[in-house]
Amino acid sequence: MNLLYALDLLGTFVFAISGLRLAARKDMDLFGATVIGFVTAVGGGTTRDLLLGATPVAWIDNIQYPIAIILAVPFTLIFRKYIVNLKRTFFVFDSIGIAIFTISGMQKALDFGLNPGLAMAMGMVSAVVGGVIRDILCNEIPLIFRKEIYATACLAGALVFYLLGNWGIDQNLNYIITTSLILIIRVVSIKYNLSMPKMK
Amino acid sequence: MNLLYALDLLGTFVFAISGLRLAARKDMDLFGATVIGFVTAVGGGTTRDLLLGATPVAWIDNIQYPIAIILAVPFTLIFRKYIVNLKRTFFVFDSIGIAIFTISGMQKALDFGLNPGLAMAMGMVSAVVGGVIRDILCNEIPLIFRKEIYATACLAGALVFYLLGNWGIDQNLNYIITTSLILIIRVVSIKYNLSMPKMK
Amino acid sequence: MNLLYALDLLGTFVFAISGLRLAARKDMDLFGATVIGFVTAVGGGTTRDLLLGATPVAWIDNIQYPIAIILAVPFTLIFRKYIVNLKRTFFVFDSIGIAIFTISGMQKALDFGLNPGLAMAMGMVSAVVGGVIRDILCNEIPLIFRKEIYATACLAGALVFYLLGNWGIDQNLNYIITTSLILIIRVVSIKYNLSMPKMK
Repeated sequence: MNLLYALDLLGTFVFAISGLRLAARKDMDLFGATVIGFVTAVGGGTTRDLLLGATPVAWIDNIQYPIAIILAVPFTLIFRKYIVNLKRTFFVFDSIGIAIFTISGMQKALDFGLNPGLAMAMGMVSAVVGGVIRDILCNEIPLIFRKEIYATACLAGALVFYLLGNWGIDQNLNYIITTSLILIIRVVSIKYNLSMPKMK
Repeated sequence: MNLLYALDLLGTFVFAISGLRLAARKDMDLFGATVIGFVTAVGGGTTRDLLLGATPVAWIDNIQYPIAIILAVPFTLIFRKYIVNLKRTFFVFDSIGIAIFTISGMQKALDFGLNPGLAMAMGMVSAVVGGVIRDILCNEIPLIFRKEIYATACLAGALVFYLLGNWGIDQNLNYIITTSLILIIRVVSIKYNLSMPKMK
Repeated sequence: MNLLYALDLLGTFVFAISGLRLAARKDMDLFGATVIGFVTAVGGGTTRDLLLGATPVAWIDNIQYPIAIILAVPFTLIFRKYIVNLKRTFFVFDSIGIAIFTISGMQKALDFGLNPGLAMAMGMVSAVVGGVIRDILCNEIPLIFRKEIYATACLAGALVFYLLGNWGIDQNLNYIITTSLILIIRVVSIKYNLSMPKMK
């Protein structure tokens, strides 16, 4: 089992928690919350796989993804005091998820022979679509369209991932550096309230 | 023509009516309402087929599905007095639809070689996605996320379908028993206002 | 390079502008607005390609579509005075987009061997889905479900496209006539406030 795959399962797990956590705040029942967690965790990768024509999609072919999501349910229930009540934890879990999914999604697109520009776009799709679906189903304005730096962090990480890869860096090291970079950009931008220039 | 296929066409027809009925309440024009009816009827099965990689999707390959939907339009117009004004009828048509689509969707997933757990998930996807799209397009909180038992009824029916199938029961009898079971759970849970435990 | 392909790129360009323009009104940042422009421009064709099983979808296989969208960003910024502030321009760009996408989408479906009825439906899907996603992401009631003639214009154009094609008219002439027809129906229906009969 390689590092990227392990990271991808971790991303699935934490993204499911971000969905469960938001659903719990919306007063959903256990089952509805599990559905939200599932959709949040698989939405981005599923969209990527559909666009690439890589069907059946990853979580149908590989039972470990559904298992990672199911495990997130008791985890969230047990640690609910820490997860549900703190606003900050939601951003942490969401940010770890998009950091990992950007890089794993981009790598999968590169493996499918896409050029680097489109592979970056696919990395972003993998990272943000799950959260967008989560937010729409929960009737929230999608995080991606709020004012903080969000998809831009994914884009920056994807760009560095490509440059370091071209430069010949060890692949596993590259995964660690670039997922950390995305996470750091996200945390710093929230802490210092940084944002991109408005469209108008 | 086998029983499951006949049921699937019936499910398509009643689900289209549930979409038309909601659209009529939202003051849409005939054409917009027809679009909503169409999307409601095919949304779940289409999502299932896309995830499985079973493209082109069922209603493109088989003209009888679009015909069932088109027939729902004059039917709804003629019986509008009974369909549009009664709140209860909406739930009846929606419930018949999810009952049938759960079982037909699960059977299709089993035919594609999915394991029983994923096939159940696919049954639920087939059943609920059309209604979720209908509700989002009509700016309603999706039924699935309200407090009554909804997806849980599908899950229960899917589980019984699997168990009875393993036990060697006649397949057509199994279809009848399990779609009825889902419908009954749904009706009883609304009548007695039953609900699942909240996430938090 | 044939006429239909040139039109399709133009449609992509103007549809991206319609998305950027709406996003700018919603106070999004440059990046979020670009994402909205992208999704608006490719949403309909992507849905059509997924339903047909024509994957990877068109804009992954052909870099000219993403380029047309990226070019729409500086164009919108430079001419923002004319594009963003005038309510009318939004409808013009949206209407040019749906006119072109209806016909190019229908042609693609016919090339895939669909019967004329389904090909018309695919033309409409190609035309309206991008705008529906744009409106939902921007928290607007989708244009298609408001009271003016919208999808009906696409349907009328698609029908004439089929009839003229059967009648043996030159294909390029047919493209010009039918996209113009859709655009004219749309403009006239807005100018004179025409609408379809209500469902109820």
